[in-house]
Amino acid sequence: MLEAFFKPNSVAIVGASTAPGKLGYTVLANVIESGFRGNIYPINPKAKQIYGHKAYPSVMDLPETPDLAVIVIPYMYVPNALRELGEKGTKAVVVISAGFREASVEGFEREQELIEIAHKYKIRVIGPNCLGIIDCFTPLNATFAAGTPPSGNISFMSQSGALQTAILDWSLACKDLGFSRFVSLGNKADVNENDLMLDWVDDPETKVILAYVEGVPNGQQFIKVARDVSRKKPVLVLKSGVTESGSRAVSSHTGSLAGAEAAYDSAFYQAGVLRLDNLQELFDSARAFANQPLLTGDRIAIVTNAGGPGILATDQLEHAGMELARLEVETIQKLEEFLPEAASAANPVDVLGDATSERYAPAIEIVAQDPNVDGIICIVTPQAMTDIVETANAVGQLSQRLDKPILGAFMGGERAKAGEDVLASYKIPNYKFPEQAAKAFAAMRDYIVARDRPDPEYVSFDVDKDKVAEVFKHARSEGRVSVGEAEARAVAEAYGLRLPQSELAATAEEAVQIASKIGYPVVLKIASPDILHKTDVGGVKVDLRSASDVRDAFDLMVYRANRYVPDARIWGCLVQEMVSLSGIEVLVGMSKDPQFGPLVTFGLGGILVEALKDVTFRVAPFGKQDAEEMLDEIRAHSLLAGVRGRPPADREAMIDTLLRINQLVTDFPEIVEMDINPLMVYEKGQGAITLDMRLVLKS
Amino acid sequence: MLEAFFKPNSVAIVGASTAPGKLGYTVLANVIESGFRGNIYPINPKAKQIYGHKAYPSVMDLPETPDLAVIVIPYMYVPNALRELGEKGTKAVVVISAGFREASVEGFEREQELIEIAHKYKIRVIGPNCLGIIDCFTPLNATFAAGTPPSGNISFMSQSGALQTAILDWSLACKDLGFSRFVSLGNKADVNENDLMLDWVDDPETKVILAYVEGVPNGQQFIKVARDVSRKKPVLVLKSGVTESGSRAVSSHTGSLAGAEAAYDSAFYQAGVLRLDNLQELFDSARAFANQPLLTGDRIAIVTNAGGPGILATDQLEHAGMELARLEVETIQKLEEFLPEAASAANPVDVLGDATSERYAPAIEIVAQDPNVDGIICIVTPQAMTDIVETANAVGQLSQRLDKPILGAFMGGERAKAGEDVLASYKIPNYKFPEQAAKAFAAMRDYIVARDRPDPEYVSFDVDKDKVAEVFKHARSEGRVSVGEAEARAVAEAYGLRLPQSELAATAEEAVQIASKIGYPVVLKIASPDILHKTDVGGVKVDLRSASDVRDAFDLMVYRANRYVPDARIWGCLVQEMVSLSGIEVLVGMSKDPQFGPLVTFGLGGILVEALKDVTFRVAPFGKQDAEEMLDEIRAHSLLAGVRGRPPADREAMIDTLLRINQLVTDFPEIVEMDINPLMVYEKGQGAITLDMRLVLKS
Repeated sequence: MLEAFFKPNSVAIVGASTAPGKLGYTVLANVIESGFRGNIYPINPKAKQIYGHKAYPSVMDLPETPDLAVIVIPYMYVPNALRELGEKGTKAVVVISAGFREASVEGFEREQELIEIAHKYKIRVIGPNCLGIIDCFTPLNATFAAGTPPSGNISFMSQSGALQTAILDWSLACKDLGFSRFVSLGNKADVNENDLMLDWVDDPETKVILAYVEGVPNGQQFIKVARDVSRKKPVLVLKSGVTESGSRAVSSHTGSLAGAEAAYDSAFYQAGVLRLDNLQELFDSARAFANQPLLTGDRIAIVTNAGGPGILATDQLEHAGMELARLEVETIQKLEEFLPEAASAANPVDVLGDATSERYAPAIEIVAQDPNVDGIICIVTPQAMTDIVETANAVGQLSQRLDKPILGAFMGGERAKAGEDVLASYKIPNYKFPEQAAKAFAAMRDYIVARDRPDPEYVSFDVDKDKVAEVFKHARSEGRVSVGEAEARAVAEAYGLRLPQSELAATAEEAVQIASKIGYPVVLKIASPDILHKTDVGGVKVDLRSASDVRDAFDLMVYRANRYVPDARIWGCLVQEMVSLSGIEVLVGMSKDPQFGPLVTFGLGGILVEALKDVTFRVAPFGKQDAEEMLDEIRAHSLLAGVRGRPPADREAMIDTLLRINQLVTDFPEIVEMDINPLMVYEKGQGAITLDMRLVLKS
Repeated sequence: MLEAFFKPNSVAIVGASTAPGKLGYTVLANVIESGFRGNIYPINPKAKQIYGHKAYPSVMDLPETPDLAVIVIPYMYVPNALRELGEKGTKAVVVISAGFREASVEGFEREQELIEIAHKYKIRVIGPNCLGIIDCFTPLNATFAAGTPPSGNISFMSQSGALQTAILDWSLACKDLGFSRFVSLGNKADVNENDLMLDWVDDPETKVILAYVEGVPNGQQFIKVARDVSRKKPVLVLKSGVTESGSRAVSSHTGSLAGAEAAYDSAFYQAGVLRLDNLQELFDSARAFANQPLLTGDRIAIVTNAGGPGILATDQLEHAGMELARLEVETIQKLEEFLPEAASAANPVDVLGDATSERYAPAIEIVAQDPNVDGIICIVTPQAMTDIVETANAVGQLSQRLDKPILGAFMGGERAKAGEDVLASYKIPNYKFPEQAAKAFAAMRDYIVARDRPDPEYVSFDVDKDKVAEVFKHARSEGRVSVGEAEARAVAEAYGLRLPQSELAATAEEAVQIASKIGYPVVLKIASPDILHKTDVGGVKVDLRSASDVRDAFDLMVYRANRYVPDARIWGCLVQEMVSLSGIEVLVGMSKDPQFGPLVTFGLGGILVEALKDVTFRVAPFGKQDAEEMLDEIRAHSLLAGVRGRPPADREAMIDTLLRINQLVTDFPEIVEMDINPLMVYEKGQGAITLDMRLVLKS
């Protein structure tokens, strides 16, 4: 799809310069020095030849249509250059020039102009305001960076070009960090993360996709694309700008609970994307994915010549919820047969401080053959007898016969480095600290879990959508965006939520009939448009347990209402179900995230929601499995499962409510905030009742 | 105190060997090659001379008493060698030899023998089973490690010698990592962390104390010593073995909540010790402490030539609860005066990708002069125009005129390394990733907070200790270690806890008198040793609101009891305060930690304690400030402060209860477990009532 960017037959550099140090010179030099084998066309109206290549005054003068053009001219000339490329028929353009949306209001408008030209000529544009792009296999370096990274299986896109220059410089010194494609996203006027993911999923040289992003433009599309891509290749993301989260204005409980980061976390999870905590973990993980086979399970064995580092790796594995592999008895016996007596044959396998390659290699081989072992961390501290290079060689050779991943933790400085370089030649990434290797394995485990997570099973209920549309229309007709209690009740009913039963009785006998239908006990409330404070006139009676109770209460309340408010219109009494407060209060809510749309919240409700903030999120629409997971994700999940002899709460009722709300907020994007708090959940089989629901529409 | 270990005038190496490769050779070679200037005595019965030094057949043959001896002979000969050193008068001995407690039961006994000999001769022993010790300033390397680390301001003790070999190898390649003292603790038969901390606090070359520990032997002493030491120098600890926590058998709620890690976390906090998460963070922080002045506040400014890395550092700072410094208007104006228009003069200050040292240096200087800035992170990505070495030099020279700490994040590989080396020459530590620098500053902030935390203000209440002793004696006299409800009530009363009031009435009139004293409503319960299930005979009446209610209930219950259980001895009725359930249920408990002793727990009580595990801990005895902090440390702290219009709970009553329990468990170390769950806490000024208290004594 974006083939022309990465595998072009010809490249024009619009703004190629004769002056070393200028960006237009560096880009041309990089294209040439990276070994690009196609035609190279410097465009410069004043030069005849640059860097040994014939220069052309303009794109229009080129002898052929270049597949790819790179623009490095001052911003005011960029629109025209793009137009000329369009006329010439070029379909892939990288705009390195800055001075667009990032710079000023005029720049923003200039960027809009670029987009219009691109649409008109069906040109795909990367940038503007970017470092350029690299494909290490073509090879083609169309950036102004210093040098070309080694080739490898990582493809990396970044919203920060400078970050890429640092990673590039690092890759030149680090033997196990190589790239397939390296793209600076710039302002993402056209090509964005979604386009690149879709392109890279088919690139045979890309084993792992990395992205540094500060924001995702089209959240719902991102989830769909990333979900497909992450089924085939790991997508690792570093998302920065956590601090933005505080900046959104929110008014509901749900809104204040759901920062932008919660939306990103949920979206990445739903999309099967791994979010890493920092730059180091991003690349530590990427090196494992790019160089080693994937884990097929989470049971890790550690082979070490030192106890302490083995414990540190174990701690980190357990912290990440990984398993320390339980070795088979036969494995332990085989290890014991050749290891010294003081060694430990149980995992972590301690081959002792005087271990050489001759002890390491068979130990790792025996451990790798154990069916309970999915991956191996090989820790080597540089002790007196340690033959680091030989050990690295032995481990490396062994790894080529194994189908299980091995990560190295050859610790130390100069001595370790020698081993690290040997490991790199066998494509075994090495980590200075054993905890890093454990974290990299945890990322692999996270990926296989994410990859294998089934597609969401969307559930659609038979609901009364028209009724809701009507309610919203009515509210808007009165100039309101907030929906009243009775209206919210109608919305809830239309979407099949259970509410406390309630019916108007005009007479005492009618009240008795309704009460026997609802079931005792019931609550009676005086129904009159003229009585606002019902309790002031004795207009509410609770816990009525029999027909005679209801009859007495009805008569008494109507009598009192007439006495206290002589002119009141009395419609009769509302007979309501008396809701038991014996259930567990939970919250189901939704707030609108600017990037991802409706973000549904589930958590403990009532007064605990504010105190504990024990909530979890999903971007709607989500599937049944998501709803089930949400129940288990809150910290207080065991409260729902029943503690101290309490019966378990009705899971099905909570899942049902979540899925109906999921449908409601998907059907009506105009809902910007809503919450049910509390949803009173009773024991298994007894359902849940929506006690209080609030709704705000888009203004 | 341990002067003889680190600054000896003479060293004997017992077991010095003539064979290169042997430990006894390596240790001698290290002593000599490290440049030790005192007398060196190889002890070897078979050699005349080793490595140019006259060898002696035994310690007894030495011409003087060596200040320090290092033993590297097979374990069976070690006790005798130690005895001879005792006879000779040596007071400091490092036992490198293994084969002691770590190896076998016999080894354990052999270690006991060592300890006895050491005590007899007043010898201090480091080890056995260790790598040895280093003092880089003496200089003296009495280890079998490969090489001597560069000298610097870090002193490092470790329970893993192999880990130290890795760190040592690393330090040889890393220009800003140097050590003062380097001690392998081994089995800690005698000298332990406490001794070394006390010694190092007075070492002028030690700016920061590092420890890798797998366990702390004497927890209460550790807290005291570390608290004193950490007032003067940062103590940074990596504690491994988190997995041990699951192994302790526990029976109470409190016990199941408090793993060993909770005890370590609390103890380290109370001791002012910083616990780091992993090896990398330990050394990243140590390099900051050792090389730069301390922060005096937590407001950090970032100067960067790239937006992305600046955001990553900002994210990490905020994640760690640090402040991004708000620059003064004048600072921003000064920056704007010389920075290009596209630059950002607000923090993070973005000096743009083409910044050279000539832009970096004044930007940092201006920022450093801002009174709102406590520390600076200088981020440099290697872009086309970046003069890395010049920038490092400029920043380095500037740092010498500033009293604020600066950390470097010169990112990348080879190009960054050149800058890193220059920075190191100015004692500015550099980090490959900006997040590391942010974390190192967070560790500095954590230290100044820990250092300045006041000493615990111990509170002592006037209690009836004898009464409790009597209760425990009585329980034990009956062969019980668990204390019954009535006994627990007596204990609680003796320590001034408020209980539901309760008094025995023999007659109805007496019941009325007691009820009016307690205050209505009250509860009446039949009091008879022969009626176990009171409710079965109608022997409990609640919510009695008047004298006549009480009189009627008394007569009715006695009548019924006589009728249903004709032979029962009826003592009358218990008249009890009817406790309001309107308060918040919290838990106050204690479990005994094997390392640190009584570990007091505070958290949400009732059914929430199990579901949420929202608890916090302190090792007793703790001070009033600790009790106050505990209230604020639980996640649900805002529930205590009052949410949704609820009044705040009575803080003073909770603090009072915590401090009384603190006193109880300190007075009676024989209590191994106890909890009050719930402690019903009412609104401010209304106190708290102990509703259920359980106690288990040591068996």
